[in-house]
Amino acid sequence: ELVAALEQLQASRLPALSGKTVLITAGPTREAIDPVRFLSNHSSGKMGFALAEAAAKAGARVQLVTGPVNLATPAGVERIDVQSAQQMHTAVMQRASAADIFIGCAAVADYRVAEVAEQKMKKTSSNDELTLTLVKNPDIIADVAALTYQRPFTVGFAAETENLANYAKDKLQRKKLDLICANDVSSKEQGFHSEHNAITAYWQGGELALERQPKISIAHAIIELIANKLTQKRQ
Amino acid sequence: ELVAALEQLQASRLPALSGKTVLITAGPTREAIDPVRFLSNHSSGKMGFALAEAAAKAGARVQLVTGPVNLATPAGVERIDVQSAQQMHTAVMQRASAADIFIGCAAVADYRVAEVAEQKMKKTSSNDELTLTLVKNPDIIADVAALTYQRPFTVGFAAETENLANYAKDKLQRKKLDLICANDVSSKEQGFHSEHNAITAYWQGGELALERQPKISIAHAIIELIANKLTQKRQ
Repeated sequence: ELVAALEQLQASRLPALSGKTVLITAGPTREAIDPVRFLSNHSSGKMGFALAEAAAKAGARVQLVTGPVNLATPAGVERIDVQSAQQMHTAVMQRASAADIFIGCAAVADYRVAEVAEQKMKKTSSNDELTLTLVKNPDIIADVAALTYQRPFTVGFAAETENLANYAKDKLQRKKLDLICANDVSSKEQGFHSEHNAITAYWQGGELALERQPKISIAHAIIELIANKLTQKRQ
Repeated sequence: ELVAALEQLQASRLPALSGKTVLITAGPTREAIDPVRFLSNHSSGKMGFALAEAAAKAGARVQLVTGPVNLATPAGVERIDVQSAQQMHTAVMQRASAADIFIGCAAVADYRVAEVAEQKMKKTSSNDELTLTLVKNPDIIADVAALTYQRPFTVGFAAETENLANYAKDKLQRKKLDLICANDVSSKEQGFHSEHNAITAYWQGGELALERQPKISIAHAIIELIANKLTQKRQ
Protein backbone atom coordinates (compact mmCIF):
# COMPACT_ATOMS: atom_id res chain seq x y z
CA GLU A 1 0.00 0.00 0.00
CA LEU A 2 2.60 2.48 1.22
CA VAL A 3 5.22 1.26 -1.23
CA ALA A 4 2.70 1.45 -4.07
CA ALA A 5 1.84 5.02 -3.15
CA LEU A 6 5.52 5.97 -3.05
CA GLU A 7 6.20 4.37 -6.41
CA GLN A 8 3.18 6.10 -7.86
CA LEU A 9 4.51 9.41 -6.55
CA GLN A 10 7.96 8.86 -7.93
CA ALA A 11 6.61 7.76 -11.30
CA SER A 12 4.32 10.77 -11.60
CA ARG A 13 5.27 13.82 -13.63
CA LEU A 14 5.85 17.18 -11.97
CA PRO A 15 2.72 18.30 -10.14
CA ALA A 16 0.50 20.21 -12.48
CA LEU A 17 -1.66 22.63 -10.53
CA SER A 18 -1.81 25.27 -13.25
CA GLY A 19 -5.30 26.68 -13.52
CA LYS A 20 -6.09 25.50 -9.98
CA THR A 21 -6.83 27.76 -7.02
CA VAL A 22 -5.39 26.62 -3.69
CA LEU A 23 -6.60 28.14 -0.43
CA ILE A 24 -4.29 27.56 2.55
CA THR A 25 -4.47 28.55 6.21
CA ALA A 26 -1.29 28.94 8.28
CA GLY A 27 0.02 30.00 11.66
CA PRO A 28 -1.72 30.27 15.01
CA THR A 29 -4.80 32.30 15.82
CA ARG A 30 -4.91 34.77 18.69
CA GLU A 31 -8.00 34.92 20.87
CA ALA A 32 -8.27 38.20 22.79
CA ILE A 33 -8.80 38.15 26.55
CA ASP A 34 -8.65 41.96 26.79
CA PRO A 35 -6.88 44.67 24.72
CA VAL A 36 -3.50 43.41 25.98
CA ARG A 37 -3.76 39.68 26.71
CA PHE A 38 -4.58 36.77 24.45
CA LEU A 39 -4.64 32.98 24.10
CA SER A 40 -2.53 31.45 21.35
CA ASN A 41 -0.36 28.46 20.46
CA HIS A 42 3.16 27.63 19.30
CA SER A 43 2.48 27.38 15.55
CA SER A 44 5.17 29.27 13.59
CA GLY A 45 3.32 29.16 10.26
CA LYS A 46 6.36 27.64 8.53
CA MET A 47 4.59 24.50 7.27
CA GLY A 48 1.65 26.48 5.82
CA PHE A 49 3.98 29.00 4.17
CA ALA A 50 6.05 26.14 2.71
CA LEU A 51 2.86 24.61 1.28
CA ALA A 52 1.91 27.97 -0.25
CA GLU A 53 5.36 28.26 -1.84
CA ALA A 54 5.19 24.67 -3.17
CA ALA A 55 1.67 25.16 -4.57
CA ALA A 56 2.68 28.41 -6.28
CA LYS A 57 5.72 26.68 -7.81
CA ALA A 58 3.35 23.95 -9.06
CA GLY A 59 1.54 26.62 -11.03
CA ALA A 60 -1.49 27.21 -8.79
CA ARG A 61 -3.09 30.49 -7.84
CA VAL A 62 -2.50 30.54 -4.08
CA GLN A 63 -4.41 32.39 -1.37
CA LEU A 64 -2.82 32.19 2.08
CA VAL A 65 -4.96 33.11 5.10
CA THR A 66 -2.56 33.47 8.00
CA GLY A 67 -2.60 34.26 11.69
CA PRO A 68 0.18 36.41 13.24
CA VAL A 69 3.56 35.01 12.14
CA ASN A 70 7.01 36.40 11.39
CA LEU A 71 7.43 35.08 7.87
CA ALA A 72 7.86 36.64 4.43
CA THR A 73 5.09 35.99 1.91
CA PRO A 74 6.27 33.49 -0.76
CA ALA A 75 6.55 34.91 -4.29
CA GLY A 76 3.27 35.01 -6.21
CA VAL A 77 1.12 34.21 -3.17
CA GLU A 78 -1.86 36.37 -2.15
CA ARG A 79 -1.72 36.81 1.64
CA ILE A 80 -4.70 37.60 3.89
CA ASP A 81 -3.77 38.45 7.49
CA VAL A 82 -6.15 37.61 10.33
CA GLN A 83 -5.92 37.36 14.11
CA SER A 84 -8.76 35.30 15.56
CA ALA A 85 -10.35 31.98 14.60
CA GLN A 86 -13.59 33.79 13.81
CA GLN A 87 -11.76 36.14 11.40
CA MET A 88 -10.01 33.16 9.81
CA HIS A 89 -13.34 31.35 9.46
CA THR A 90 -14.87 34.36 7.68
CA ALA A 91 -11.86 34.81 5.37
CA VAL A 92 -11.88 31.11 4.45
CA MET A 93 -15.63 30.68 3.93
CA GLN A 94 -15.65 33.71 1.59
CA ARG A 95 -13.08 31.97 -0.63
CA ALA A 96 -13.63 28.21 -0.16
CA SER A 97 -16.16 27.61 -2.94
CA ALA A 98 -13.93 29.32 -5.48
CA ALA A 99 -10.98 27.10 -4.54
CA ASP A 100 -10.15 23.70 -6.03
CA ILE A 101 -8.08 22.69 -3.02
CA PHE A 102 -8.31 23.77 0.61
CA ILE A 103 -5.42 23.00 2.98
CA GLY A 104 -6.16 23.78 6.62
CA CYS A 105 -2.66 23.96 8.06
CA ALA A 106 -3.31 26.69 10.66
CA ALA A 107 -3.34 25.79 14.34
CA VAL A 108 -6.75 27.34 14.94
CA ALA A 109 -7.64 27.93 18.58
CA ASP A 110 -10.40 25.48 19.52
CA TYR A 111 -11.72 27.91 22.11
CA ARG A 112 -12.04 31.64 22.53
CA VAL A 113 -12.81 33.69 25.64
CA ALA A 114 -16.58 33.93 26.22
CA GLU A 115 -16.51 37.63 27.07
CA VAL A 116 -13.62 39.81 25.89
CA ALA A 117 -12.90 42.68 28.32
CA GLU A 118 -12.94 46.10 26.66
CA GLN A 119 -10.31 47.49 29.02
CA LYS A 120 -7.20 45.83 30.39
CA MET A 121 -8.19 43.59 33.29
CA LYS A 122 -6.66 44.67 36.58
CA LYS A 123 -4.92 42.42 39.01
CA THR A 124 -6.23 43.25 42.47
CA SER A 125 -5.05 41.90 45.78
CA SER A 126 -8.46 40.32 46.30
CA ASN A 127 -8.48 37.97 43.32
CA ASP A 128 -5.74 35.40 43.85
CA GLU A 129 -7.57 33.15 41.45
CA LEU A 130 -9.25 34.04 38.21
CA THR A 131 -11.58 31.95 36.10
CA LEU A 132 -11.62 32.29 32.35
CA THR A 133 -14.69 30.89 30.62
CA LEU A 134 -13.97 29.66 27.11
CA VAL A 135 -16.43 28.78 24.35
CA LYS A 136 -15.89 26.71 21.20
CA ASN A 137 -14.69 28.40 18.04
CA PRO A 138 -16.19 27.54 14.65
CA ASP A 139 -14.57 24.45 13.08
CA ILE A 140 -13.15 25.90 9.84
CA ILE A 141 -12.04 22.70 8.17
CA ALA A 142 -15.24 20.79 9.04
CA ASP A 143 -17.29 23.67 7.63
CA VAL A 144 -15.31 23.60 4.36
CA ALA A 145 -15.52 19.80 4.11
CA ALA A 146 -19.30 19.98 4.72
CA LEU A 147 -19.91 22.27 1.73
CA THR A 148 -22.43 20.57 -0.55
CA TYR A 149 -21.94 22.89 -3.52
CA GLN A 150 -18.48 23.61 -5.03
CA ARG A 151 -16.66 21.80 -2.26
CA PRO A 152 -12.85 21.95 -2.67
CA PHE A 153 -10.57 18.93 -2.18
CA THR A 154 -10.07 19.29 1.57
CA VAL A 155 -6.81 18.58 3.39
CA GLY A 156 -6.44 18.78 7.16
CA PHE A 157 -3.57 18.65 9.61
CA ALA A 158 -3.39 16.93 12.97
CA ALA A 159 -0.69 18.09 15.37
CA GLU A 160 -0.67 15.84 18.39
CA THR A 161 1.54 14.85 21.27
CA GLU A 162 0.20 11.27 21.63
CA ASN A 163 -1.82 8.55 19.78
CA LEU A 164 -1.11 10.37 16.53
CA ALA A 165 -2.19 7.77 13.93
CA ASN A 166 -5.46 6.91 15.62
CA TYR A 167 -6.42 10.50 16.20
CA ALA A 168 -5.56 11.52 12.62
CA LYS A 169 -7.58 8.66 11.07
CA ASP A 170 -10.52 9.47 13.33
CA LYS A 171 -10.35 13.15 12.31
CA LEU A 172 -10.24 12.16 8.60
CA GLN A 173 -13.52 10.24 8.99
CA ARG A 174 -15.29 12.50 11.45
CA LYS A 175 -14.64 15.74 9.52
CA LYS A 176 -15.07 14.06 6.11
CA LEU A 177 -11.66 15.19 4.83
CA ASP A 178 -10.05 13.95 1.63
CA LEU A 179 -6.58 13.81 3.18
CA ILE A 180 -5.04 14.42 6.58
CA CYS A 181 -1.39 15.13 7.42
CA ALA A 182 -0.41 14.00 10.91
CA ASN A 183 2.64 15.30 12.71
CA ASP A 184 3.95 14.63 16.17
CA VAL A 185 4.62 17.92 17.95
CA SER A 186 5.95 16.35 21.15
CA SER A 187 9.50 16.35 19.72
CA LYS A 188 11.64 19.48 19.45
CA GLU A 189 13.32 17.95 16.40
CA GLN A 190 10.28 18.60 14.22
CA GLY A 191 7.00 20.51 14.05
CA PHE A 192 6.22 24.06 15.19
CA HIS A 193 9.28 26.32 15.22
CA SER A 194 11.56 23.70 13.67
CA GLU A 195 12.66 23.95 10.03
CA HIS A 196 12.03 20.20 9.77
CA ASN A 197 9.00 18.04 9.95
CA ALA A 198 8.00 14.39 9.66
CA ILE A 199 4.50 13.71 8.44
CA THR A 200 2.28 10.75 7.68
CA ALA A 201 -0.56 11.51 5.28
CA TYR A 202 -3.72 9.38 5.52
CA TRP A 203 -6.61 9.06 3.08
CA GLN A 204 -9.41 6.55 2.59
CA GLY A 205 -7.53 3.33 1.98
CA GLY A 206 -3.96 4.57 1.97
CA GLU A 207 -1.15 6.38 3.71
CA LEU A 208 2.19 7.95 2.89
CA ALA A 209 4.97 8.37 5.43
CA LEU A 210 7.37 11.26 4.87
CA GLU A 211 10.44 10.97 7.08
CA ARG A 212 12.08 13.89 8.87
CA GLN A 213 13.21 16.43 6.24
CA PRO A 214 13.03 20.21 5.60
CA LYS A 215 9.47 21.58 5.66
CA ILE A 216 9.78 22.80 2.06
CA SER A 217 10.50 19.27 0.77
CA ILE A 218 7.63 17.90 2.88
CA ALA A 219 5.47 20.62 1.28
CA HIS A 220 6.48 19.64 -2.28
CA ALA A 221 5.66 15.97 -1.52
CA ILE A 222 2.24 16.88 -0.08
CA ILE A 223 1.40 19.13 -3.05
CA GLU A 224 2.44 16.32 -5.39
CA LEU A 225 0.26 13.85 -3.48
CA ILE A 226 -2.72 16.21 -3.63
CA ALA A 227 -2.23 16.78 -7.38
CA ASN A 228 -2.19 12.99 -7.90
CA LYS A 229 -5.37 12.51 -5.87
CA LEU A 230 -7.11 15.27 -7.86
CA THR A 231 -6.13 13.56 -11.13
CA GLN A 232 -7.41 10.20 -9.85
CA LYS A 233 -10.68 11.83 -8.82
CA ARG A 234 -11.19 13.24 -12.29
CA GLN A 235 -10.53 9.88 -14.02
CA GLU B 1 8.66 71.02 38.39
CA LEU B 2 8.50 69.47 34.95
CA VAL B 3 10.35 72.36 33.35
CA ALA B 4 13.01 72.15 36.03
CA ALA B 5 13.45 68.45 35.39
CA LEU B 6 13.75 69.04 31.66
CA GLU B 7 16.31 71.80 32.10
CA GLN B 8 18.26 69.67 34.50
CA LEU B 9 18.25 66.88 31.93
CA GLN B 10 19.42 69.14 29.16
CA ALA B 11 22.11 70.68 31.31
CA SER B 12 23.50 67.35 32.41
CA ARG B 13 26.51 65.82 30.75
CA LEU B 14 26.21 62.57 28.81
CA PRO B 15 24.83 59.84 31.04
CA ALA B 16 27.65 58.14 32.81
CA LEU B 17 26.66 54.61 33.67
CA SER B 18 30.18 53.21 33.31
CA GLY B 19 30.91 50.79 36.11
CA LYS B 20 27.18 50.27 36.67
CA THR B 21 25.26 47.05 36.11
CA VAL B 22 21.77 47.43 34.65
CA LEU B 23 19.31 44.53 34.74
CA ILE B 24 16.38 44.88 32.33
CA THR B 25 13.36 42.69 31.58
CA ALA B 26 11.64 42.85 28.19
CA GLY B 27 8.91 41.29 26.08
CA PRO B 28 5.89 39.24 27.06
CA THR B 29 5.88 36.03 29.09
CA ARG B 30 4.15 32.90 27.89
CA GLU B 31 2.13 30.83 30.32
CA ALA B 32 1.60 27.26 29.15
CA ILE B 33 -1.91 25.79 29.06
CA ASP B 34 -0.67 22.50 27.58
CA PRO B 35 2.29 21.58 25.32
CA VAL B 36 0.71 23.49 22.42
CA ARG B 37 -1.39 26.34 23.83
CA PHE B 38 -0.42 29.33 25.95
CA LEU B 39 -1.54 32.66 27.39
CA SER B 40 0.46 35.73 26.39
CA ASN B 41 0.19 39.42 25.56
CA HIS B 42 1.02 41.87 22.77
CA SER B 43 4.38 43.12 24.07
CA SER B 44 6.93 43.19 21.25
CA GLY B 45 9.94 43.73 23.53
CA LYS B 46 11.04 46.78 21.50
CA MET B 47 10.99 49.23 24.42
CA GLY B 48 13.03 46.93 26.69
CA PHE B 49 15.55 46.20 23.94
CA ALA B 50 15.85 49.94 23.22
CA LEU B 51 16.54 50.54 26.93
CA ALA B 52 19.21 47.82 26.89
CA GLU B 53 20.84 49.44 23.86
CA ALA B 54 20.73 52.91 25.45
CA ALA B 55 22.14 51.63 28.76
CA ALA B 56 24.97 49.81 26.97
CA LYS B 57 25.79 52.98 25.00
CA ALA B 58 25.87 54.86 28.32
CA GLY B 59 28.69 52.56 29.39
CA ALA B 60 26.77 50.15 31.63
CA ARG B 61 27.11 46.39 31.86
CA VAL B 62 23.66 45.28 30.70
CA GLN B 63 21.82 42.03 31.40
CA LEU B 64 18.58 41.62 29.47
CA VAL B 65 16.09 38.98 30.65
CA THR B 66 13.59 38.58 27.84
CA GLY B 67 10.48 36.61 27.02
CA PRO B 68 9.89 35.29 23.47
CA VAL B 69 10.44 38.14 20.99
CA ASN B 70 11.70 38.51 17.43
CA LEU B 71 14.49 41.00 18.07
CA ALA B 72 18.25 41.01 17.68
CA THR B 73 20.29 41.39 20.86
CA PRO B 74 21.84 44.89 21.05
CA ALA B 75 25.65 45.01 20.86
CA GLY B 76 27.41 44.34 24.14
CA VAL B 77 24.26 43.18 25.94
CA GLU B 78 24.08 39.85 27.80
CA ARG B 79 20.75 38.21 26.92
CA ILE B 80 18.92 35.62 29.05
CA ASP B 81 15.91 34.02 27.32
CA VAL B 82 12.94 32.85 29.37
CA GLN B 83 9.35 31.84 28.64
CA SER B 84 7.18 32.05 31.75
CA ALA B 85 6.78 34.63 34.52
CA GLN B 86 8.15 32.13 37.02
CA GLN B 87 11.28 31.62 34.90
CA MET B 88 11.67 35.39 34.55
CA HIS B 89 11.26 35.81 38.31
CA THR B 90 14.01 33.27 38.98
CA ALA B 91 16.38 34.81 36.40
CA VAL B 92 15.83 38.31 37.83
CA MET B 93 16.10 37.44 41.53
CA GLN B 94 19.40 35.62 40.88
CA ARG B 95 20.85 38.85 39.46
CA ALA B 96 18.98 41.71 41.18
CA SER B 97 21.29 42.24 44.16
CA ALA B 98 24.34 42.49 41.90
CA ALA B 99 22.64 45.20 39.80
CA ASP B 100 22.78 48.95 40.44
CA ILE B 101 19.63 49.55 38.40
CA PHE B 102 16.67 47.27 37.66
CA ILE B 103 14.24 48.22 34.90
CA GLY B 104 11.15 46.02 34.73
CA CYS B 105 9.94 46.68 31.20
CA ALA B 106 8.54 43.20 30.45
CA ALA B 107 4.80 42.70 30.22
CA VAL B 108 4.77 39.88 32.75
CA ALA B 109 1.61 37.77 32.79
CA ASP B 110 -0.22 38.51 36.04
CA TYR B 111 -1.74 35.03 36.02
CA ARG B 112 -0.71 31.55 34.94
CA VAL B 113 -2.81 28.43 34.45
CA ALA B 114 -3.31 26.60 37.76
CA GLU B 115 -2.69 23.14 36.29
CA VAL B 116 -0.73 22.78 33.05
CA ALA B 117 -1.88 19.74 31.02
CA GLU B 118 0.97 17.37 30.12
CA GLN B 119 -0.67 16.36 26.84
CA LYS B 120 -2.52 18.49 24.32
CA MET B 121 -6.06 19.04 25.57
CA LYS B 122 -8.67 17.53 23.29
CA LYS B 123 -11.75 19.30 22.06
CA THR B 124 -14.64 16.88 22.48
CA SER B 125 -18.21 17.33 21.32
CA SER B 126 -19.34 17.22 24.95
CA ASN B 127 -17.51 20.31 26.22
CA ASP B 128 -18.89 23.35 24.48
CA GLU B 129 -17.56 25.43 27.32
CA LEU B 130 -14.24 25.14 29.05
CA THR B 131 -13.13 26.77 32.27
CA LEU B 132 -9.53 27.76 32.79
CA THR B 133 -8.51 28.39 36.38
CA LEU B 134 -5.72 30.94 36.69
CA VAL B 135 -3.54 31.71 39.71
CA LYS B 136 -1.40 34.77 40.41
CA ASN B 137 2.17 34.88 39.22
CA PRO B 138 4.96 36.23 41.44
CA ASP B 139 5.28 40.04 41.26
CA ILE B 140 8.85 40.43 39.96
CA ILE B 141 9.21 44.19 40.30
CA ALA B 142 7.63 44.32 43.77
CA ASP B 143 9.99 41.56 44.91
CA VAL B 144 13.02 43.50 43.60
CA ALA B 145 11.82 46.77 45.16
CA ALA B 146 11.28 44.98 48.48
CA LEU B 147 14.90 43.81 48.73
CA THR B 148 16.33 45.10 52.02
CA TYR B 149 19.95 44.31 51.21
CA GLN B 150 21.67 45.51 48.00
CA ARG B 151 18.47 46.80 46.50
CA PRO B 152 18.94 48.26 42.99
CA PHE B 153 17.40 51.56 41.87
CA THR B 154 14.07 50.13 40.69
CA VAL B 155 12.18 51.36 37.63
CA GLY B 156 8.77 50.03 36.64
CA PHE B 157 6.49 50.38 33.63
CA ALA B 158 2.74 50.77 33.52
CA ALA B 159 0.99 49.96 30.26
CA GLU B 160 -2.65 50.86 30.55
CA THR B 161 -5.66 51.55 28.38
CA GLU B 162 -7.36 54.01 30.81
CA ASN B 163 -6.70 56.20 33.88
CA LEU B 164 -3.00 56.04 33.13
CA ALA B 165 -1.57 58.74 35.42
CA ASN B 166 -3.55 57.68 38.48
CA TYR B 167 -2.73 54.03 38.04
CA ALA B 168 0.96 54.72 37.46
CA LYS B 169 1.31 56.94 40.56
CA ASP B 170 -0.54 54.36 42.64
CA LYS B 171 1.80 51.62 41.38
CA LEU B 172 4.86 53.78 42.19
CA GLN B 173 3.74 54.05 45.84
CA ARG B 174 2.27 50.59 46.28
CA LYS B 175 5.28 48.71 44.90
CA LYS B 176 7.82 51.17 46.41
CA LEU B 177 9.48 51.92 43.06
CA ASP B 178 12.00 54.71 42.49
CA LEU B 179 10.56 55.61 39.10
CA ILE B 180 7.68 54.50 36.92
CA CYS B 181 7.23 54.99 33.17
CA ALA B 182 3.60 55.13 32.09
CA ASN B 183 2.46 54.54 28.54
CA ASP B 184 -0.98 54.41 27.03
CA VAL B 185 -1.39 51.23 25.00
CA SER B 186 -4.91 51.98 23.80
CA SER B 187 -3.54 53.80 20.73
CA LYS B 188 -2.08 51.99 17.74
CA GLU B 189 0.20 55.00 17.16
CA GLN B 190 2.41 54.05 20.08
CA GLY B 191 3.23 51.25 22.50
CA PHE B 192 3.52 47.50 21.83
CA HIS B 193 4.38 46.71 18.21
CA SER B 194 4.88 50.35 17.24
CA GLU B 195 8.37 51.80 16.71
CA HIS B 196 7.20 54.88 18.62
CA ASN B 197 6.15 55.53 22.15
CA ALA B 198 5.02 58.39 24.38
CA ILE B 199 5.84 58.07 28.06
CA THR B 200 5.40 60.03 31.22
CA ALA B 201 7.86 59.14 33.98
CA TYR B 202 6.79 59.69 37.60
CA TRP B 203 8.87 59.71 40.78
CA GLN B 204 8.35 60.98 44.31
CA GLY B 205 7.72 64.67 43.75
CA GLY B 206 8.23 64.96 40.02
CA GLU B 207 7.38 63.87 36.53
CA LEU B 208 8.78 64.05 33.03
CA ALA B 209 6.63 63.88 29.91
CA LEU B 210 8.26 62.48 26.77
CA GLU B 211 6.15 63.13 23.70
CA ARG B 212 5.63 60.61 20.90
CA GLN B 213 9.04 59.77 19.39
CA PRO B 214 11.06 56.68 18.35
CA LYS B 215 11.47 54.15 21.15
CA ILE B 216 15.26 54.45 21.02
CA SER B 217 15.15 58.20 21.76
CA ILE B 218 12.61 57.57 24.56
CA ALA B 219 15.09 54.97 25.87
CA HIS B 220 18.02 57.42 25.84
CA ALA B 221 15.93 59.99 27.75
CA ILE B 222 14.89 57.43 30.38
CA ILE B 223 18.46 56.19 30.84
CA GLU B 224 19.61 59.81 31.22
CA LEU B 225 16.85 60.46 33.79
CA ILE B 226 17.84 57.34 35.75
CA ALA B 227 21.53 58.34 35.69
CA ASN B 228 20.60 61.77 37.05
CA LYS B 229 18.48 60.27 39.81
CA LEU B 230 21.32 57.92 40.78
CA THR B 231 23.73 60.87 40.99
CA GLN B 232 21.28 62.86 43.16
CA LYS B 233 20.88 59.86 45.45
CA ARG B 234 24.62 59.63 45.97
CA GLN B 235 24.94 63.33 46.80
